[in-house]
Amino acid sequence: RVLRIGLIPGDGIGREVIPAGRRILEALPSSLGLKFEFSDLHAGFETFEKTGAALPRRTVDVLRGECDGALFGAVSSPSKAVKGYSSPIVALRKELDLYANIRPVKSVRTDRTAIDLVIARENTEDLYVKEEKTFERPASEGGRYAEAIKRISERASTRIATIAGEIALRRQKIREAGSSGSSIHKQPLVTITHKSNVLSKTDGLFREAARAALSAPQFQGAVAVEEQIVDSMAYKLFRQPGAYDVIVAPNLYGDILSDAAAALVGSLGLVPSANVGEGFAIGEPCHGSAPDIEGKGIANPIATLRSTALMLEFLNEEEAAAKIYAAVDANLEEGKLLTPDLGGKATTEEVVADILKRL
Amino acid sequence: RVLRIGLIPGDGIGREVIPAGRRILEALPSSLGLKFEFSDLHAGFETFEKTGAALPRRTVDVLRGECDGALFGAVSSPSKAVKGYSSPIVALRKELDLYANIRPVKSVRTDRTAIDLVIARENTEDLYVKEEKTFERPASEGGRYAEAIKRISERASTRIATIAGEIALRRQKIREAGSSGSSIHKQPLVTITHKSNVLSKTDGLFREAARAALSAPQFQGAVAVEEQIVDSMAYKLFRQPGAYDVIVAPNLYGDILSDAAAALVGSLGLVPSANVGEGFAIGEPCHGSAPDIEGKGIANPIATLRSTALMLEFLNEEEAAAKIYAAVDANLEEGKLLTPDLGGKATTEEVVADILKRL
Ligand SMILES: CC(C)[C@H](C(=O)O)[C@@H](O)C(=O)O
Ligand SMILES: CC(C)[C@H](C(=O)O)[C@@H](O)C(=O)O
Repeated sequence: RVLRIGLIPGDGIGREVIPAGRRILEALPSSLGLKFEFSDLHAGFETFEKTGAALPRRTVDVLRGECDGALFGAVSSPSKAVKGYSSPIVALRKELDLYANIRPVKSVRTDRTAIDLVIARENTEDLYVKEEKTFERPASEGGRYAEAIKRISERASTRIATIAGEIALRRQKIREAGSSGSSIHKQPLVTITHKSNVLSKTDGLFREAARAALSAPQFQGAVAVEEQIVDSMAYKLFRQPGAYDVIVAPNLYGDILSDAAAALVGSLGLVPSANVGEGFAIGEPCHGSAPDIEGKGIANPIATLRSTALMLEFLNEEEAAAKIYAAVDANLEEGKLLTPDLGGKATTEEVVADILKRL
Repeated sequence: RVLRIGLIPGDGIGREVIPAGRRILEALPSSLGLKFEFSDLHAGFETFEKTGAALPRRTVDVLRGECDGALFGAVSSPSKAVKGYSSPIVALRKELDLYANIRPVKSVRTDRTAIDLVIARENTEDLYVKEEKTFERPASEGGRYAEAIKRISERASTRIATIAGEIALRRQKIREAGSSGSSIHKQPLVTITHKSNVLSKTDGLFREAARAALSAPQFQGAVAVEEQIVDSMAYKLFRQPGAYDVIVAPNLYGDILSDAAAALVGSLGLVPSANVGEGFAIGEPCHGSAPDIEGKGIANPIATLRSTALMLEFLNEEEAAAKIYAAVDANLEEGKLLTPDLGGKATTEEVVADILKRL
């Protein structure tokens, strides 16, 4: 099978980590019968400054017309609002209808509380529809204000809850096959996050659609379903992270909770994500463009390597994905070659080399 | 000075902790020259079931017409949407224009990372305007969806940033006076939280108005100002909580971040809040009605006792407030009489008695 992968490094350390994704794909054992071709694509703030478009048309066209999947690095957010600029990854998720943002958060080294959970974040709507307006009023009537629309649809909520349920079942299968090291969950569990005590219609719809989706025949009796109000979830995530298996959340809560969960495993530099649609997936490290360490060659490549594996999983190349995960875990378990975010002294290059060696 | 305080226990453990607030007010040394009178008021889910109104008119009228401040316990959220029910505390904040929700989060026992920060949460708008609609569409056109309005005004953003700046200055004064034990901040700092990389108009307005408010003459050169995108804030709050002094946030982010911060100090049972308006304040523990421990007599009264002190602070009774804080801190520092949420075996009653003794 030949897979064509779009490479979109973006800005900052995106350019230092995306090459690692390419290298690990090229280094996969030939016994897997996989070949990779690559398309170099542009997006991000620098692209915007050069071309006037943060997400050039060509990037979308090539992804849609020629690629099977992609890797996206990170983009820098301008420190002030810049006219005409808006985040290309948010646009890309919508353009390609990548309706699920899947974020597994797993601890490997055991000096911390064991965590092994996946956040399934809805990826196309909520406040991310970006329908905003500013209103001018005389100061006497209260002055200027702005409004944004939070939109929640039954369809998107159903889709994300369904994939959350499927992931919960898949995780159980992998655990039973014994190919996963840590196994803190016995029964597959999906926790629905919302704030329907305040947002009874929007988050109420999310909750209701998610509950309905998770009571479909394929989940009945196999996947347990719980609920957790989002503020309380932020609390419990720290206090009892072992209580979660798969968390399903509307877009913005998923965004916030996944960063919180990343803090628990020690570094954003470890946490991968995949933007998943029908037959297409974009791997994307959860970290940003990290201007503070840009150009120093010390960015942690693991989030990207794991995102590469995650992309492969959703392209049905689970065996290849498992090889990458295992090589990364072996590096972390040994704990000798770590980048500074994990308290080590290794460079990006040294970590990549160590992991490639373990493939 | 005679202060009339409304007591609104609400549901669940609200009824077990609000009496502790009353008792500590009554136990304050007479040398302070303060007298307290109390009005027992109703609100909550049980009130709704009995009377059809979660926030009876009389409660609002008495608070507005007769009281100087109030203590609010907690209300239980029904596990399914109930027609006509909506959260009375959200309504109360709007009715009385309690525009700031102030949530200090401070660690006392030193076996954890030292944290000493305050979250200043906007308390009247954002998605809490609760303007929601459901739309029906044929499935072929995408099916049912719902929308909610997120509203951010220049006025409310200015007000909350201003009080955040004032709190940062006040905290410095208290530190300089040496009356605070731990002091991990040197210069007053306000960190503005937003998601303006996605919500450029609404959160962009919050950011801009907050920046403008914090560059007013009284803050110039005295209060440092930083910014942090909300997802990244959830991460950094865990990783470097010592980096924050006062955090100012729109309503919903403030809601989520304050629960996250509470996890860092070990228990929601420790974290107080005050809903603050012009000349009026309602103390409110950050925890909920906790149905799991209701009726067992083991709810932690500390969040309520600290909320009582916080209410007094905003009624300009700082000396009385300081006495309560010191008594609570002494109980925690000794660490012998703790409720189960802190790993102890004491009852609510035993903890209250111990703290009253230390007044
Ligand atoms: C950069 C930003 C627009 C993006 C988001 O909010 O989705 C990022 O935080 C993420 O989580 O991928
Ligand atoms: C009960 C709920 C409506 C409330 C809120 O969201 O404000 C609570 O979480 C709080 O933080 O006081």
